[in-house]
Amino acid sequence: MSRLAIALDLGGSQLRAGLIEESGTMLRRNSMPTPANAGPDIVIKAMAGMAKDIAEGIEPHRVAGLGVSSPGPLDTELGLALGLPNLAGFSDFPLRDRLSEATGLSVSLENDGIAAAIGEWKQGSGQGLSHLVYVTVSTGIGGGVIADGRVLRGRRGMAGHIGHMIVIPDGAPCPCGNRGCWEAYACGPAFARRASERLGRQVDAESVFRSAEAGDAPAQALVAEQADILGIGIVSLLHLYSPEMVILGGGLLHGFSLLDAGIRSRISRSAMPAFRDVRVAKAALFPDSGLIGAGMLVFGTSQA
Amino acid sequence: MSRLAIALDLGGSQLRAGLIEESGTMLRRNSMPTPANAGPDIVIKAMAGMAKDIAEGIEPHRVAGLGVSSPGPLDTELGLALGLPNLAGFSDFPLRDRLSEATGLSVSLENDGIAAAIGEWKQGSGQGLSHLVYVTVSTGIGGGVIADGRVLRGRRGMAGHIGHMIVIPDGAPCPCGNRGCWEAYACGPAFARRASERLGRQVDAESVFRSAEAGDAPAQALVAEQADILGIGIVSLLHLYSPEMVILGGGLLHGFSLLDAGIRSRISRSAMPAFRDVRVAKAALFPDSGLIGAGMLVFGTSQA
Repeated sequence: MSRLAIALDLGGSQLRAGLIEESGTMLRRNSMPTPANAGPDIVIKAMAGMAKDIAEGIEPHRVAGLGVSSPGPLDTELGLALGLPNLAGFSDFPLRDRLSEATGLSVSLENDGIAAAIGEWKQGSGQGLSHLVYVTVSTGIGGGVIADGRVLRGRRGMAGHIGHMIVIPDGAPCPCGNRGCWEAYACGPAFARRASERLGRQVDAESVFRSAEAGDAPAQALVAEQADILGIGIVSLLHLYSPEMVILGGGLLHGFSLLDAGIRSRISRSAMPAFRDVRVAKAALFPDSGLIGAGMLVFGTSQA
Repeated sequence: MSRLAIALDLGGSQLRAGLIEESGTMLRRNSMPTPANAGPDIVIKAMAGMAKDIAEGIEPHRVAGLGVSSPGPLDTELGLALGLPNLAGFSDFPLRDRLSEATGLSVSLENDGIAAAIGEWKQGSGQGLSHLVYVTVSTGIGGGVIADGRVLRGRRGMAGHIGHMIVIPDGAPCPCGNRGCWEAYACGPAFARRASERLGRQVDAESVFRSAEAGDAPAQALVAEQADILGIGIVSLLHLYSPEMVILGGGLLHGFSLLDAGIRSRISRSAMPAFRDVRVAKAALFPDSGLIGAGMLVFGTSQA
């Protein structure tokens, strides 16, 4: 019988679980609302419960371990959640050890952006590549980098906080506390806010995409602007990491077909010539890139 | 008898050579003006001549190879100079193979920023670290990254073009052809230009530093502004690569003692808390970081 990984993806709104084969196939899948305000004890209990439920009826010796994707910043060397913006009480919290105690499993903890990069690298759009940057555009902007055939981790495993590149010094306030981060301009809520201001009524990203698709000129202008803002950050990422492919995931990527041309146009205009042919692709596993990546961590396939 | 590396550092103005032991000790050193406008044939001839001269009297079997640091963008996988801004005729030029033919030596070619990062990692301020970012601030801004105990190379070896992060979209023109790059605001010439405009007379970076040191308030304001611009880019680098240390080299670093506090202040203000304790240090080997790094390449010590 093949070995299985239990994977958990701890999000600010959803807590998701998967039972995953070494091939990346997800055999079972489950989700529940994250008890985000209930404090770490309740969250740990919920996570351990989901891990147990998803492996119901599976012989324990088949379970290779528990892979966990969590928002950052984490210290993945020490297994700590340093301070999770959307989860009350997670400050310098020993997430890895507490989960290991609660489940009796060995736990691999990874930043959600890096977990998704691993998922896309091993099973998604980036299969077979040596260098890729994964960018998730949703409530915030997160990311993960594969370079030279390995996961880029950096000190304390904190590399790849790509949403917090400064694109306008002292510009718009960012949830991280700084100003002018890429995230502050390019994340989903920033797009919706800009659209609402411009159109004079409350709209969400989905509805702007729908209007743009239907030919509405102001909506199309907003989408073009959003694509350009994404492209500006991506140009920097090309120069910084030199990937073969940039993979876009996250909720905003429902609009990928509308954003793609504008992103490419900014790359053609602003990237140095040697970087202009890099592919930009949609995450193939969305919304499960991180869950599958967390599973892959368990099998140790994330390291060259 | 110990093995020796011949190292060449091809700069826009100076061509430098070194004879280097595996320990990093430079036994001999030489330099000449780069024949920058004479075309590749003459440059190759000059480089081969310097390599020969520096190894004069050394038994050939002791020479392990030739390490070359060159401005980018290079494709170090194929050994190509893709287009060197300050050297006429170097466009998709097979620099590695031509130097190998001209010298009879095996040639290791590296981007100058990465070569300097290797030098500082192996023999300079970054010894013993697993994660560092080297930043050179001179005519342009270049860099190199060590992450997870290895050199970060990326596709075609082009990672680490840190000067071309966009810090002001569609801002000041940059020599790379784009606008708003960090280099366009933070490099030496940008500092001198800003100072000259502000002071109403032609000044260079050196003289602004001297005036600031002597207590001149407008010069001190210019230095503070320059430190802040450097700090803004460094904050992004912390979030992107998560180094243990940022090492600053290049001509502008003569003013390091004046810039240091302003850089640190920007980091304290704008970096996410988990990144604020990262050290910023001066390159210990300046101006030979790249030359020594090129020598280290020959001994293969750049890979974990």
